Amino acid sequence: MTVNQHVSDKVSKIEPLLTEWRRDLHQFPELGWCEYQTTAYIVEKLTPLSFQLFLGKEVSDSVSRMGLPTEEEDQWHLDRARKNGVPLELLEKMKGSHTGVVAQLDTGKPGKHMAFRFDIDALPIHETPDAEHAPVREQFASRHDGQMHACGHDGHTSIGLGVAHLLHDLKDELTGVYTLIFQPAEEGVRGAQSIVEKGWLDQADLFLAGHIMDQPVGTIVPGISSSLATSKYNVTFSGVSSHAGASPETGQNALFAAATAATQLYGIARHSAGATRMNVGKLIAGNGRNIIADTAYMEIETRGETNELNEYVSTKALTILKASADMHGVQVTSELVGKGISAQSDEIWSEIISSSVQGSKYVKHVSSSFEKIGGSEDATFMMERVQAKGGLATYLLYGSNLSAAHHNPAFDYGEGVLSIAVDTLIHIVLNQQT
Amino acid sequence: MTVNQHVSDKVSKIEPLLTEWRRDLHQFPELGWCEYQTTAYIVEKLTPLSFQLFLGKEVSDSVSRMGLPTEEEDQWHLDRARKNGVPLELLEKMKGSHTGVVAQLDTGKPGKHMAFRFDIDALPIHETPDAEHAPVREQFASRHDGQMHACGHDGHTSIGLGVAHLLHDLKDELTGVYTLIFQPAEEGVRGAQSIVEKGWLDQADLFLAGHIMDQPVGTIVPGISSSLATSKYNVTFSGVSSHAGASPETGQNALFAAATAATQLYGIARHSAGATRMNVGKLIAGNGRNIIADTAYMEIETRGETNELNEYVSTKALTILKASADMHGVQVTSELVGKGISAQSDEIWSEIISSSVQGSKYVKHVSSSFEKIGGSEDATFMMERVQAKGGLATYLLYGSNLSAAHHNPAFDYGEGVLSIAVDTLIHIVLNQQT
Amino acid sequence: MTVNQHVSDKVSKIEPLLTEWRRDLHQFPELGWCEYQTTAYIVEKLTPLSFQLFLGKEVSDSVSRMGLPTEEEDQWHLDRARKNGVPLELLEKMKGSHTGVVAQLDTGKPGKHMAFRFDIDALPIHETPDAEHAPVREQFASRHDGQMHACGHDGHTSIGLGVAHLLHDLKDELTGVYTLIFQPAEEGVRGAQSIVEKGWLDQADLFLAGHIMDQPVGTIVPGISSSLATSKYNVTFSGVSSHAGASPETGQNALFAAATAATQLYGIARHSAGATRMNVGKLIAGNGRNIIADTAYMEIETRGETNELNEYVSTKALTILKASADMHGVQVTSELVGKGISAQSDEIWSEIISSSVQGSKYVKHVSSSFEKIGGSEDATFMMERVQAKGGLATYLLYGSNLSAAHHNPAFDYGEGVLSIAVDTLIHIVLNQQT
Amino acid sequence: MTVNQHVSDKVSKIEPLLTEWRRDLHQFPELGWCEYQTTAYIVEKLTPLSFQLFLGKEVSDSVSRMGLPTEEEDQWHLDRARKNGVPLELLEKMKGSHTGVVAQLDTGKPGKHMAFRFDIDALPIHETPDAEHAPVREQFASRHDGQMHACGHDGHTSIGLGVAHLLHDLKDELTGVYTLIFQPAEEGVRGAQSIVEKGWLDQADLFLAGHIMDQPVGTIVPGISSSLATSKYNVTFSGVSSHAGASPETGQNALFAAATAATQLYGIARHSAGATRMNVGKLIAGNGRNIIADTAYMEIETRGETNELNEYVSTKALTILKASADMHGVQVTSELVGKGISAQSDEIWSEIISSSVQGSKYVKHVSSSFEKIGGSEDATFMMERVQAKGGLATYLLYGSNLSAAHHNPAFDYGEGVLSIAVDTLIHIVLNQQT
Repeated sequence: MTVNQHVSDKVSKIEPLLTEWRRDLHQFPELGWCEYQTTAYIVEKLTPLSFQLFLGKEVSDSVSRMGLPTEEEDQWHLDRARKNGVPLELLEKMKGSHTGVVAQLDTGKPGKHMAFRFDIDALPIHETPDAEHAPVREQFASRHDGQMHACGHDGHTSIGLGVAHLLHDLKDELTGVYTLIFQPAEEGVRGAQSIVEKGWLDQADLFLAGHIMDQPVGTIVPGISSSLATSKYNVTFSGVSSHAGASPETGQNALFAAATAATQLYGIARHSAGATRMNVGKLIAGNGRNIIADTAYMEIETRGETNELNEYVSTKALTILKASADMHGVQVTSELVGKGISAQSDEIWSEIISSSVQGSKYVKHVSSSFEKIGGSEDATFMMERVQAKGGLATYLLYGSNLSAAHHNPAFDYGEGVLSIAVDTLIHIVLNQQT
Repeated sequence: MTVNQHVSDKVSKIEPLLTEWRRDLHQFPELGWCEYQTTAYIVEKLTPLSFQLFLGKEVSDSVSRMGLPTEEEDQWHLDRARKNGVPLELLEKMKGSHTGVVAQLDTGKPGKHMAFRFDIDALPIHETPDAEHAPVREQFASRHDGQMHACGHDGHTSIGLGVAHLLHDLKDELTGVYTLIFQPAEEGVRGAQSIVEKGWLDQADLFLAGHIMDQPVGTIVPGISSSLATSKYNVTFSGVSSHAGASPETGQNALFAAATAATQLYGIARHSAGATRMNVGKLIAGNGRNIIADTAYMEIETRGETNELNEYVSTKALTILKASADMHGVQVTSELVGKGISAQSDEIWSEIISSSVQGSKYVKHVSSSFEKIGGSEDATFMMERVQAKGGLATYLLYGSNLSAAHHNPAFDYGEGVLSIAVDTLIHIVLNQQT
Repeated sequence: MTVNQHVSDKVSKIEPLLTEWRRDLHQFPELGWCEYQTTAYIVEKLTPLSFQLFLGKEVSDSVSRMGLPTEEEDQWHLDRARKNGVPLELLEKMKGSHTGVVAQLDTGKPGKHMAFRFDIDALPIHETPDAEHAPVREQFASRHDGQMHACGHDGHTSIGLGVAHLLHDLKDELTGVYTLIFQPAEEGVRGAQSIVEKGWLDQADLFLAGHIMDQPVGTIVPGISSSLATSKYNVTFSGVSSHAGASPETGQNALFAAATAATQLYGIARHSAGATRMNVGKLIAGNGRNIIADTAYMEIETRGETNELNEYVSTKALTILKASADMHGVQVTSELVGKGISAQSDEIWSEIISSSVQGSKYVKHVSSSFEKIGGSEDATFMMERVQAKGGLATYLLYGSNLSAAHHNPAFDYGEGVLSIAVDTLIHIVLNQQT
Repeated sequence: MTVNQHVSDKVSKIEPLLTEWRRDLHQFPELGWCEYQTTAYIVEKLTPLSFQLFLGKEVSDSVSRMGLPTEEEDQWHLDRARKNGVPLELLEKMKGSHTGVVAQLDTGKPGKHMAFRFDIDALPIHETPDAEHAPVREQFASRHDGQMHACGHDGHTSIGLGVAHLLHDLKDELTGVYTLIFQPAEEGVRGAQSIVEKGWLDQADLFLAGHIMDQPVGTIVPGISSSLATSKYNVTFSGVSSHAGASPETGQNALFAAATAATQLYGIARHSAGATRMNVGKLIAGNGRNIIADTAYMEIETRGETNELNEYVSTKALTILKASADMHGVQVTSELVGKGISAQSDEIWSEIISSSVQGSKYVKHVSSSFEKIGGSEDATFMMERVQAKGGLATYLLYGSNLSAAHHNPAFDYGEGVLSIAVDTLIHIVLNQQT
């Protein structure tokens, strides 16, 4: 029996489980740093296997976590998880936004240390109630009102569980070490750096992260390098309110400062070295129609094709924010709540992946061309660390038919992608055996 | 017994009631057009008296009401009122934001028709929990979280009830007709015009509205003309969202349009004919950091020393809003949700008032000087209608020590002002007997 | 013979001279601080009379002069004056923009010290070549291309010369001291303060300045107090240029900074204490279409009904200029090139003037009402100094039919106003004899 | 004798002429559409040769010329050319900005039709008087104050003359047709399209344009495709002036409109399909400090990596200009005064060029890598037309040491590049002989 046959048999056996896990996860989406129930679910599924599990403060470096929820929001999610049956002892370990799991299988035999990243968080989006939407039709739509797995991380998590099961199953044939990182808070690029800072990538020889993407079914695209470096800031302006009719001159207008900043931020000069981006995605200011506004809040992000380009935009943005505040006599503070860097996939590693999946029953095509994403990813922090330590890293796409764009209330994907992804990763693993 | 003695005796008898009513009302503040419980309270207190009461659609012209709450907000307030014990049959009459009461006493004897306006609505302000704050200390603070009588309309309503009681008491001595208007939605200048359009001011020979103000206790200021004409708009921009990293060019940025409008609105040219004002009091835009915003909402107001000046600013503002939308390829709609005009108090009527209160035990001083308010009032619509029909109209201030400015979470006033105001109004009434 | 007859006889005798002087002056208008030929003309006319003349650095405090021309401009004007025949020794005294004359007549007899201000500068305006325009028709239009007496200062100077002649004529009847100030650079409110700082107003008991204005002929309006306090700034932004296509990111965009400042300056909050004004009258920026602009220049002014209000606007403006520069990484400097303050005419002095001209053949009507000017004047510095030293000061208007508004290329006035003004001033003088 | 030897001998013979011509041309730089003296110089040098010369309206399609000078400017340049000795009959043909020459050599033998573009105009730049600057040191600096050959077009013209001389010399060995286009107004991308519209490129099988660039001496770079598509607009805002103090409300502020436009233009959303640029290079607005500005003028440009991207920015820009005008109640007109498109050099043609110069004594290196220029060129119109008709087109760079960047007052280049360029072009010609 060929390796291909060997793997495809095993993959086909867990196909029903991949779907079941994904549908379970889809029903209880949780926002970044609040994945209490999701983490517990992963733990439950991995506990019977031969992995050592790391939880809570073992997963991430506390102070390197970015864009944490408020204490109130965190508590609200934790309470919900408790009501949904998550055991108290697990919650105790995770409380304070220490979500996520690292699962490690050490074969005890010399070999490569391979690390995989699976992101597990969901989005603050109301899932469409449209009867045509598969999760509605098949009755696994989100039960968490206003929250939704609209970026496929339910699938990524399911793929991770599938890989874990097959690694467990194949463990006697394997050499080296396998680290599966179930990462919280990828949305907003908030979580990866804290895991990197905890040292989880320092020993990895080979690193892989992947994403379900709108490509032909059966196609995989290894070697993606196009994600933009990005910084996310929450910006708060504090002024002085006054009655807009009786004493407009005594106010220090935070709304005016924020509106000024918004119009100016979009005007940051383009850069000849490559693409940049600037967005003010949210602006909330003022208390009442007849009051000079004393508060304003903005959520902004900068991006750049390279870290330098992102830095260029960020630096200009902070200058503009400060000057806009000065202009209107108000105070401004900018909190960095998310950060992604640009990273290059290693070409040689992509080629190894290509040849690993030759003859696979699931993977029909390996594509090397891919249009730029324009998005950002914090798996890049992991890639950068692995490469800095001498390892190889790459970012994969798994093709699937999407019913709507990522982050859309009607987002969904063909579940066939789950077994294709597991098959891909296991092929790669087996190819690396000494 | 002099008239003065006669009146002051009657006023002093109801002093405890004035305080009681005011404190009751202070505990269940309701926003404009949602004064279900307040209206019911007024009805309850007036029912035993000799007034004919008009309710629901009898009070206001439905289509002339401005700045109505959403159906959802209205229903929420109505439900609260029902839970708080307001009888269903009353709610049935008022439902759909037909709040407020007109109470009319026709003596059947020839004489003047006098009309009084008392405003009854509260504000969306969290009352301070400070133990020094009298309503907290005396345990009559707002029980409606996030809503507060922070502009003294609880006192105005109590004054109206007091005047009603004394008119009832004195009815055999009186001639003519007395119309007491308990007006909803003065905040935001949304309610008066609809009552005017219903015709309630068409027969009035004499009109009076008043306000508790920061003046020495015992001082009244008749003849105020300084309120600014004003227009209030809710502005909505609708654009097209897109991913800020992947396809910034396909968005139509509503946030950018609104920020542009905000910065430009403040720049409307000053006018040589007098004072003008412009404010963008609230701005809420966008959905998420990495999304080009497809929605923005602003609450703005214009003001002018005269109607023409306000019109000048409003016209410019609407032009700017349209152009800001065009500039960013988005749609904009501006809804007029409040309007106040400027009006002149009749000097002769102010002089009559001055002489009416000569010798009053309560009124120590009649002041003719008053600094400009800079605020706006929709009682001006009533003043204008009365004057247009040949009657006299004026606006009074009742002096009181304020603990904080109007619309401040710590706003409060010395309750002594209540009897001073009732005394003033009854003196005026008696002075007008033929 | 009455005083009236006495004065009107003398005035009527010099009427042809008043016209002649005015028409001479109209032909060689000179910009502020460059009135070399004008000053020489005044000197020539006054030399035969009994006045002591002060010139050059005796007139003004050098460092208090504002808005001086560049050395190049100054030299250009001086050269023109030399070519036009101004004697070298006079030019020597005036060179470096020390223009203007103070003429003083000391009667040697105890009495009032009266000071009069006549402004002498012209404007950078092309006089209309329209054949209907009186100076064209009567052949006394400007011979200085691009410069024009479009604000009537030729008339004011002529009035000053007329007053000088009559004071000389009447000197044996007079007591006290008479100071005639022929002030340079009133346009742009640049000259008065430097004369005040030289001490010329310190001894004056009574002060008068006046202006030809669009009022009925024969009407004078004493007691004008409506001129706005004002500050004039020249603003220069210095950035760094770069190629807009090849390296937009290396530029520091001075044009963008200036445009930002311009839009923000108009948005300075209105003030509840009274009228304010803000204008960016001129903006010149950039070198070429495809270059990020490294320079920008703006001429701006602030105004206020009071000095405090003007100060409020100026302070805000300077803050905005600084922040706009910071925002775009450029430098900004703001030079104060003109300043006018608000001043109150003394009511008692206006009343004295009114009674002084009773029965005058020339003055038909003394008006006390005048609409606000909205303009500014630096005679206010002189008024303030006189009042500070205990004297009385006022500002007069002389009514005349204007053919077009002040500062218009077709501006002109009926020359009859000249004798009316001289008559007024001489009446006032005679009224003050002890 | 090899071809290489044959060519290099001929080139080395005219080396002194190349320098002489270049230095002559450098002394009388002329702005685009005003190259009267330059055109005459070219005519003088070509007349002795076997070329048919086309002048005046034969060169360009009158209405397709963009960014013409004003009649006044044109006349001024024409007068200067006449004073400098350009024959009247030549001026008569060229007058009205019909400058430039097309020189055609028809061998009468079947063969390729090759077309070459040489641009001839200069820039409005003051040449540095620095003694280190070679044109100063060698005494051939610009004699036209404020105008300078700061982009090397004097060299390009000299190269064109050299090519003409060698083609004339070699004509008996040649087959086919040779069209040499001496193009006016390349600066501002204003001239090429009008020549294309005249049909001069319709028969060309092979097209070449080139530029002196900062590359190692001896290096040529064929196949440049990186010039940005661009559009140039002159924008005029017309409003209504008013006195900024007395009646700010009656003005329609053109300066405010232009400043608004400037700040908004820079904020046009970046495009995911590639690089875009936007610049407001010049802004001139207003008449005086105390006047609401009634005029504003801007020079702007848009660019894009592709024609579609440039179109995207231009369309947005025109929308913003219109909305900025609407916002302030002013009129706006935008005149297209220059346009360049993006074009692709034909790879096969570049390869032919590479092999043509193999073994050349002058060309040391053929480079295929070149960083993006970020600039624009209107030779692209010619390239596009040739390709549309089935021919091949390319854009070459000739390496040279530059003393300062293009468009800098100290710009200069090593004159050795002239013979290298001529050698290159003649090699290419000989390589194409059948």
